[in-house]
Amino acid sequence: MARGDVVLGANQYGKAECRLVRITRDTDRHEIEDLNVTSQLRGDFTACHTEGDNSRVVATDTQKNTVYSLAREHGVHSPEQFLLTLGRHFVAEYPWIDGGRWEAESFGWDRIPVGGTPHDHAFVRTGQETRTTLVQVDGEDVHVLAGFKDCVVLKSTGSEFHGFPRDRWTTLAETDDRILATSMTVWWRYTEEAVAAGLDFATAYDEVKALLLETFASVHSLALQQTIFAAGKAVLEAHPEIGEVKLSCPNKHHFLVDLAPFGQDNPGEVFLAADRPYGLIQATVQREGVPVVEEAWATLPGFC
Amino acid sequence: MARGDVVLGANQYGKAECRLVRITRDTDRHEIEDLNVTSQLRGDFTACHTEGDNSRVVATDTQKNTVYSLAREHGVHSPEQFLLTLGRHFVAEYPWIDGGRWEAESFGWDRIPVGGTPHDHAFVRTGQETRTTLVQVDGEDVHVLAGFKDCVVLKSTGSEFHGFPRDRWTTLAETDDRILATSMTVWWRYTEEAVAAGLDFATAYDEVKALLLETFASVHSLALQQTIFAAGKAVLEAHPEIGEVKLSCPNKHHFLVDLAPFGQDNPGEVFLAADRPYGLIQATVQREGVPVVEEAWATLPGFC
Amino acid sequence: MARGDVVLGANQYGKAECRLVRITRDTDRHEIEDLNVTSQLRGDFTACHTEGDNSRVVATDTQKNTVYSLAREHGVHSPEQFLLTLGRHFVAEYPWIDGGRWEAESFGWDRIPVGGTPHDHAFVRTGQETRTTLVQVDGEDVHVLAGFKDCVVLKSTGSEFHGFPRDRWTTLAETDDRILATSMTVWWRYTEEAVAAGLDFATAYDEVKALLLETFASVHSLALQQTIFAAGKAVLEAHPEIGEVKLSCPNKHHFLVDLAPFGQDNPGEVFLAADRPYGLIQATVQREGVPVVEEAWATLPGFC
Amino acid sequence: MARGDVVLGANQYGKAECRLVRITRDTDRHEIEDLNVTSQLRGDFTACHTEGDNSRVVATDTQKNTVYSLAREHGVHSPEQFLLTLGRHFVAEYPWIDGGRWEAESFGWDRIPVGGTPHDHAFVRTGQETRTTLVQVDGEDVHVLAGFKDCVVLKSTGSEFHGFPRDRWTTLAETDDRILATSMTVWWRYTEEAVAAGLDFATAYDEVKALLLETFASVHSLALQQTIFAAGKAVLEAHPEIGEVKLSCPNKHHFLVDLAPFGQDNPGEVFLAADRPYGLIQATVQREGVPVVEEAWATLPGFC
Repeated sequence: MARGDVVLGANQYGKAECRLVRITRDTDRHEIEDLNVTSQLRGDFTACHTEGDNSRVVATDTQKNTVYSLAREHGVHSPEQFLLTLGRHFVAEYPWIDGGRWEAESFGWDRIPVGGTPHDHAFVRTGQETRTTLVQVDGEDVHVLAGFKDCVVLKSTGSEFHGFPRDRWTTLAETDDRILATSMTVWWRYTEEAVAAGLDFATAYDEVKALLLETFASVHSLALQQTIFAAGKAVLEAHPEIGEVKLSCPNKHHFLVDLAPFGQDNPGEVFLAADRPYGLIQATVQREGVPVVEEAWATLPGFC
Repeated sequence: MARGDVVLGANQYGKAECRLVRITRDTDRHEIEDLNVTSQLRGDFTACHTEGDNSRVVATDTQKNTVYSLAREHGVHSPEQFLLTLGRHFVAEYPWIDGGRWEAESFGWDRIPVGGTPHDHAFVRTGQETRTTLVQVDGEDVHVLAGFKDCVVLKSTGSEFHGFPRDRWTTLAETDDRILATSMTVWWRYTEEAVAAGLDFATAYDEVKALLLETFASVHSLALQQTIFAAGKAVLEAHPEIGEVKLSCPNKHHFLVDLAPFGQDNPGEVFLAADRPYGLIQATVQREGVPVVEEAWATLPGFC
Repeated sequence: MARGDVVLGANQYGKAECRLVRITRDTDRHEIEDLNVTSQLRGDFTACHTEGDNSRVVATDTQKNTVYSLAREHGVHSPEQFLLTLGRHFVAEYPWIDGGRWEAESFGWDRIPVGGTPHDHAFVRTGQETRTTLVQVDGEDVHVLAGFKDCVVLKSTGSEFHGFPRDRWTTLAETDDRILATSMTVWWRYTEEAVAAGLDFATAYDEVKALLLETFASVHSLALQQTIFAAGKAVLEAHPEIGEVKLSCPNKHHFLVDLAPFGQDNPGEVFLAADRPYGLIQATVQREGVPVVEEAWATLPGFC
Repeated sequence: MARGDVVLGANQYGKAECRLVRITRDTDRHEIEDLNVTSQLRGDFTACHTEGDNSRVVATDTQKNTVYSLAREHGVHSPEQFLLTLGRHFVAEYPWIDGGRWEAESFGWDRIPVGGTPHDHAFVRTGQETRTTLVQVDGEDVHVLAGFKDCVVLKSTGSEFHGFPRDRWTTLAETDDRILATSMTVWWRYTEEAVAAGLDFATAYDEVKALLLETFASVHSLALQQTIFAAGKAVLEAHPEIGEVKLSCPNKHHFLVDLAPFGQDNPGEVFLAADRPYGLIQATVQREGVPVVEEAWATLPGFC
């Protein structure tokens, strides 16, 4: 190739959004696991791109089949565990596959109570959040990210915002009592050591999520930035198995409605919840002297 | 007007999707109510349509203002109660308004647990379902419908489907064990007597929703039709304050994945959850000899 | 049944959202038709609901198969024609089927220009609107509705709004120049005579849509109500084959941004396009002395 | 800070999705520009995160105000030009702001034809694609990306797929004639030289989009990878002002319906358009010896 010739750069391909529901029915008390799995492979696929030579292209349909086949063979256990199984399979099975990314959304289910007793095989979708997982494999390197999105939280007091610069374009009033609401999108990275040591991903997830919500609730907030940094900090201090945390939190504005034209006061009671525009606060929380593993985070949407 | 002249027929107008969050903060333990309110007025608005004469057109902006103003003055209490307050206000306030429709979506919130204790003023969106309410006023007649949507339920066994007609276009296999899943959209009508008597809408809602889920879980299903009829029947038998029930339930197909090509069996464990197409089962459940109050149900989407 | 016993009322069921793409390739110049078809049957399905007896339940899977099979056998031609074919098929084929509803969304495609020439078999989705069709059959009665949705239009001047009542809850300023924008949802009913006479549905659709847009553009508007009435009136006056028209048009508010705090004027140039809440204006336009055929319109979402 | 202490890492914040409609009304023939603008700032905001000190936090509300104020002052001209104006403003105005990211979606409008003549001030949303723009500023470095999404294209023939590896998990049949359809998401980077030289962004956008569609139409495809590489290659060869191109294209599967059970053949005429799962093909096309400017591409969702 001569300098300036057009060439193929980084690329990946696969099957996106394989909806997998796995029922464990060893006993009458069934268990349900519900995932939306995306598999993407990386390697040298130049001939396909330049000549349409598919001899190295593991069909996306084959990737889909493999998702269901491995779910039967190994079970899911946790989205992290299942994506690790997928990633290791593809790299081991096809010599020309160097790595890839495997991503999943997971949906929680509760048992439907019947006469006060949780039912053995009837479930209702939880709906509070969507759990998210990303595994990236690059040869020997394996990166595991976990997180969740669409978890909407709100504090009806305990939030202030003042002391910001005022200039020609500033019209926002300062406030020492506002509603603070966001839809939390959070990702954290498990260290390679913790993954190698067989971390219990299910317990870790439950604990981290609880801690994030608890910190959101507890921090008296002077800025959403302060709240999300505190939340990430709490996670890192309590979880040595986590390398760094990234949070992306819209500031879902709740405007106090001006009722004075109607002869009414409004002592923090009636709010209009706005859609757009919204604040968008994004931060990385990490450990001093420990660099963020950038390749683990590549391809995640919108993060700083 | 001569026969055949073009004239205005039925019409209504208003402000849609006023997002209202109301905080009750009489004590340190706040309460939150979260609604998406639509107000539409009916009456003689012919001059506006034919000549642009707005002298009778209560501006949609005014309707929005009224939603927030009445939320401050009367509180919400329940979406049914709040929409009744709105409906009665508009009809009483403007002589030329004959009636209208007021609709709300409501979103549930749980308190965030901190150290095991539910927090006083920090909440997380529940997410299990969206509660829905419709009040229609026509002069003296007041109709109150309640319901919910987006409540996803699933049974991993206890569902069969066979005995259906087989003809040239039939390829579906019969089954005596399948996953049954749906996203329940249910509406029910409170009788005018119950409304006049000051029904406790919050309790009724909780009881009806629990009973619908419980019946979904308990019925051994030979068809989704049978399940939803049983669910509606259970509600009518337990709730004399309800006149009729309408259910609209997609059959969210979960296809058992054929793993035989990969040398594996699949004893009801691995499923592909499909998006489209989906079955769509809709039924009215009512009381013998008691006609459905059609005008209460008009304008609801898609119902039979 | 005794009075008060719980019984089955109106019901319907079928397969929703069968995505059908039909290519006509008689010549090298292919044609594409792209539909999202829903089929729902009506008849006496009591035994299914009460006992799980499926002997009359034409499986929703069979309905789906029939959609594709009839698309092969008869072609699509127009969504109206295709849904009529479907409706007549089901009623003729199964003696216990009294009727039903068949609905379609249709998506337009343009040919991709290559070197200035429209390509024979490469297309780009048009995206301007979604065409909608509803056919309802009830024994001998056949009703055909046509329309579209998601057609976003805007006038940057030629719209006023004033003269509305002012009271305690009115804060909206009067204006003699505002942006008027909406997303048009329009449905119209072809008369049974026109349908029986073999109306050219494709031409009618194009003409009606063009006329609706043209009227939106041309009318100097004193209220969105006036604009949509004029649009429906224009259609009825030009199209004797149409019985009545219903329009549902959100008022997509564009707020003139107050730039005075920044030392700037804003002579109708810079607007904030808001999401929620929005005005919602809905009207029926009909012919004097000709009643709306209510059963043709039943089950359509939200219409007055 | 001691090693291991929790610290703030990369972060950014701002106002997302400011819906801006700008009307140019110098003459009776109005022009419309319609954008959804996101502004995010980068700099040292540590004190805000750790102590709630907002003295350097240009309020997101101020950023929103600035979007509208600068739209009045400078006009939009093109989304690239407007985002450059925004980025340069913030960096110049606030000494502690090192840079940031400014992103926009843009929506096209056509004039409504009235009597065959395009109207002066009435428009209909085009809908074919959403134009996208991203400007990132880092001190002196300015990166401009342009692109579009949601552009759905389809070829009804001229697409094959065979020669892929067959193993235990392969069930896909080979084909020498299939529908190829995708929703194109494409981004390209303008070189810093081109930006500095005052590139005509509007013309470049139109030409690149046309070329991408033309190439999609013209290439006889042996794999979607081949098609998108050819499309990117065509762009780089024709546009020296572009440094590299990234494409993300779902393979929107259209399955040929098996009509044999109904006694029918199906010679490439009747297809079921599937939703999920879908193939997902992503590639970078670049110039030999010219590295991709990674910092220009950071924060874009999902790209390899």
